Amino acid sequence: MDLKRFDSLFQQRREGHSLPQSLYISPEAHDFDLSAIYGESWLAVGMDCELPRSGSYISLMVGKWPVLIVRDKHGDIRAFHNSCRHRGSIICQPGSGAAPKLVCPYHRWTYDLDGSLFAATRMPETFDKSDHGLKPVAIENIGGALFICLSETPPPIDDFREKLSAYAAPHNYKDMKLAHQNVLVEHANWKLVMENARECYHCPTGHPELGTSFPVGMSKHFDSKDEVQVESFETIMDSLGLAHTPVEGPWWQVARFPLNPGSNSISMDGQHLSKKLLYEGNGGNIGSMRFAVDPHSFSHSTADHVFLFSAMPIGPNETHAINKWYVHKDAVEGVDYHLPSMAELWDVTNLQDKELAENNHRGVNSLGYTPGPYSDEAEMLARRFVDWYCDKARDYIAAHVD
Amino acid sequence: MDLKRFDSLFQQRREGHSLPQSLYISPEAHDFDLSAIYGESWLAVGMDCELPRSGSYISLMVGKWPVLIVRDKHGDIRAFHNSCRHRGSIICQPGSGAAPKLVCPYHRWTYDLDGSLFAATRMPETFDKSDHGLKPVAIENIGGALFICLSETPPPIDDFREKLSAYAAPHNYKDMKLAHQNVLVEHANWKLVMENARECYHCPTGHPELGTSFPVGMSKHFDSKDEVQVESFETIMDSLGLAHTPVEGPWWQVARFPLNPGSNSISMDGQHLSKKLLYEGNGGNIGSMRFAVDPHSFSHSTADHVFLFSAMPIGPNETHAINKWYVHKDAVEGVDYHLPSMAELWDVTNLQDKELAENNHRGVNSLGYTPGPYSDEAEMLARRFVDWYCDKARDYIAAHVD
Amino acid sequence: MDLKRFDSLFQQRREGHSLPQSLYISPEAHDFDLSAIYGESWLAVGMDCELPRSGSYISLMVGKWPVLIVRDKHGDIRAFHNSCRHRGSIICQPGSGAAPKLVCPYHRWTYDLDGSLFAATRMPETFDKSDHGLKPVAIENIGGALFICLSETPPPIDDFREKLSAYAAPHNYKDMKLAHQNVLVEHANWKLVMENARECYHCPTGHPELGTSFPVGMSKHFDSKDEVQVESFETIMDSLGLAHTPVEGPWWQVARFPLNPGSNSISMDGQHLSKKLLYEGNGGNIGSMRFAVDPHSFSHSTADHVFLFSAMPIGPNETHAINKWYVHKDAVEGVDYHLPSMAELWDVTNLQDKELAENNHRGVNSLGYTPGPYSDEAEMLARRFVDWYCDKARDYIAAHVD
Repeated sequence: MDLKRFDSLFQQRREGHSLPQSLYISPEAHDFDLSAIYGESWLAVGMDCELPRSGSYISLMVGKWPVLIVRDKHGDIRAFHNSCRHRGSIICQPGSGAAPKLVCPYHRWTYDLDGSLFAATRMPETFDKSDHGLKPVAIENIGGALFICLSETPPPIDDFREKLSAYAAPHNYKDMKLAHQNVLVEHANWKLVMENARECYHCPTGHPELGTSFPVGMSKHFDSKDEVQVESFETIMDSLGLAHTPVEGPWWQVARFPLNPGSNSISMDGQHLSKKLLYEGNGGNIGSMRFAVDPHSFSHSTADHVFLFSAMPIGPNETHAINKWYVHKDAVEGVDYHLPSMAELWDVTNLQDKELAENNHRGVNSLGYTPGPYSDEAEMLARRFVDWYCDKARDYIAAHVD
Repeated sequence: MDLKRFDSLFQQRREGHSLPQSLYISPEAHDFDLSAIYGESWLAVGMDCELPRSGSYISLMVGKWPVLIVRDKHGDIRAFHNSCRHRGSIICQPGSGAAPKLVCPYHRWTYDLDGSLFAATRMPETFDKSDHGLKPVAIENIGGALFICLSETPPPIDDFREKLSAYAAPHNYKDMKLAHQNVLVEHANWKLVMENARECYHCPTGHPELGTSFPVGMSKHFDSKDEVQVESFETIMDSLGLAHTPVEGPWWQVARFPLNPGSNSISMDGQHLSKKLLYEGNGGNIGSMRFAVDPHSFSHSTADHVFLFSAMPIGPNETHAINKWYVHKDAVEGVDYHLPSMAELWDVTNLQDKELAENNHRGVNSLGYTPGPYSDEAEMLARRFVDWYCDKARDYIAAHVD
Repeated sequence: MDLKRFDSLFQQRREGHSLPQSLYISPEAHDFDLSAIYGESWLAVGMDCELPRSGSYISLMVGKWPVLIVRDKHGDIRAFHNSCRHRGSIICQPGSGAAPKLVCPYHRWTYDLDGSLFAATRMPETFDKSDHGLKPVAIENIGGALFICLSETPPPIDDFREKLSAYAAPHNYKDMKLAHQNVLVEHANWKLVMENARECYHCPTGHPELGTSFPVGMSKHFDSKDEVQVESFETIMDSLGLAHTPVEGPWWQVARFPLNPGSNSISMDGQHLSKKLLYEGNGGNIGSMRFAVDPHSFSHSTADHVFLFSAMPIGPNETHAINKWYVHKDAVEGVDYHLPSMAELWDVTNLQDKELAENNHRGVNSLGYTPGPYSDEAEMLARRFVDWYCDKARDYIAAHVD
């Protein structure tokens, strides 16, 4: 990878404007982003509740990199590179499951749930099992939300841990279950998918369904124009002891904000999607607690359910949008919640965004493309994302270029 | 792009022979061709009649580059890069349509038909709309035939304009309508598609259907072996005042030539495909007026219809062959012309050529491939195309290499 | 191709361990392998019996390179690059057939079966046909088994020819016919496909069906643990005059080894797949004569049939596994052999191997992949393959780097 070429591309970047063309479309930029961004950032991969017992695992792909998340026999959650130390085979197929030990399907090398090599047949006496355990991946379990980092020197996470723990506490993540998940294939660069996900300038005309419950006309950092409504919301949240002030760090944001009047969930009709609430206070009307992690995710927690979106880069012009919906673990499908209704709003919204992002990608290929200006008022968070991306990339280049 | 490597490839080219292997098959050559050839040439994109009124537009792709052709409110035809000046989204989906203004589907930035930015909401007061109009693309309307050039310094076109205007005049392009169009995907490099399109050495055995009306045994520049027929044709054309002598410039050719005895159109049976003629003289028997534009197109105009072929490079081994058929605007489908019959000859011929070009591409990949000799007698125009390609490429390299 | 980069990759290779990651997954390594390995090795492509008469041909692809194998009018088998010397088109479509002369479908250039150009119309008088014959490819017919080499300086083959002639003689290759063939597409690098094909460490759990007849518990070079059985087998083979001792050269191995007790063929039930035997002695119970050729093939000859496997690289993560089954030429389908039963064992085994190789490939992409140790006892031949690969690559680099 020619880091000097990337250095010069990032120097060309015009402040307050979208990125130079080749950062969006070139195969080299895809490789660079995987290493410099996805390989060096904390990524939201799911929830503690998806691993209900010892031996439960999630096998997932971060781009082309297979990762395994496992609950060990002490109940702790660990993460490993999903690659056998013998000849490299993946050990668990992408998906989820449970097993008392981790057995490679190729030659039956067998690992304990803590990643140590338990057995490998037909190896010589000189072979040292303790040298051949699964390689660990950094993982954080923050109040039930799981974040991994593939880097050997992950970015500091203390501040995020403290804030998210506090803001997420009322939603009771550890008592949830995964109700539904799906993946949407978008033919657009992951950064265009994420810029789209970070602004609502396009929402009033692009997402009529979302606009029922979501304050699509907000500006900047989820600022509402209705000061009376905001003040009332803040007063109630304070009385309930629920944190709400927007807080942020270099690569994350956390806030609780009011939904549209009359709405208590982010859904087609603004009403709860699950009758079994995660938080019962104030009639289940506590707005949405949004957290967002750069480079790739955002999440909305309302009193009844949690939605988690993350984007995984597959190629220069292909991104997988992974969507997960969680409800209270005791909620009964068909009784407390109805699956098709649960997925409907984000499915329709994601399909609208997919079309917008794909249009964007096609147009960015234009011989006439020039980086254009973000609206500070309407696209503050998109600009913030792109600024973060450039800073992160420049740091990587500085650390790795000769 | 390593232009010095290309320089050395073009120096290796053996006069009178096909190209060095990697120019046909390497991904780098595809990128080079887009920039050096398609980005620097006049391209035939359609006809004035496809834009019937103010606001009519054609949205098309030149390789990966989206372009928009629009009739403005004064009736003039303009071309723009189809990429919003905000964040780059394409504005109009590929295809055709009509709109009073050009509205980007992403954030509703709105452009006048002359490309100037009319409205952009939520932008700061310091934002200057006059700096953010659509970027123009050069366009020429020659007697109703449209040619665009993506370069900021298009090649001289005066001579071609003068000649094509004269030769095309009797076919009355402005009074046509688009009757049919389709796209054929060929898994071959665009240059192999065009070499095929520039010679008829393969026609006698490769295109039995075309041979009914088309003089497939011709040599060199549509030279017939039947001098008596040619003299008779020239005498009649002179008496009608129709230009016919072959003329050419560096990147174009124009000529009118006689069809086979008994044929007055290029069709399965040699007879007119549309009863409503574009030119009524001599019983609608005026041979074919062929124009060809390097790198990518040819067209045949007979008294009853016009056929336009153009090749667009999609990848090193993928080319889109775009075909359009035009008839008199007053011709009625099902009465004056029958759509399936109209498309039949070129469809069958194009499918034969697709197979030949794909065989050619596969064989050019051979470890034993060596550039072979063109027949001067039978492949003069293919050789001429390849020579033009090399000259154009060398000019580009000379202008861009350090 | 940056050979110095490859040189450094091969220097990094750790003895006794699998390869550095980028040799398995990078597009550059695919290109390198085609040139340095497949372009410089003898490849097993089929049997003499597939070309029953003068004019019979096989057209096949070695990766992206088309090759033509033809029986000439003297009965000799020749090989050529399948690319017309005019403009490079392939002459015969991939597959097999027969023709009195080889006619390019493009412009009807016509070649004799010895590759010389017989006719090319419309070429000038100065054109020299003798300069434009098909380019030859080296071919060896060893007792009926065909091997080609695309290099102009093929590796020495005398020793292999002598040994294979002797070991294969009882199987009577020239009196066979091709009974069945198919191709399995595997989404894994060809080296992972071949490492899998060169060891049986994975067989006891990975291939339950193969284990019926095949000694899947063997170690090293088809060494059985049952010395009594081996001695008895060797005594019988000696008495029949059949060579059996394992022999090998730098890029090949030949041996005859006993099947499991009670088995006389490699099949689902261990019994002959064809009643019409290639070798009648000892009740058709002569174990399996295995030959293997690096980089890409292995073959098992039992008394009743011959199976030939070869791997062709299509891309960094795509390999075609080509499988051929041969029986006695007089065996009658439906009477002496039943096609679905014949293919069943290797089809089920290949599908198991495909899954293992694809798992392996996905895991080798891991950010945590590190080359792991081969078991000397269980994976000797896989390690030997990888060692050969590295040596061959280093030789190529030494010969081609400046």
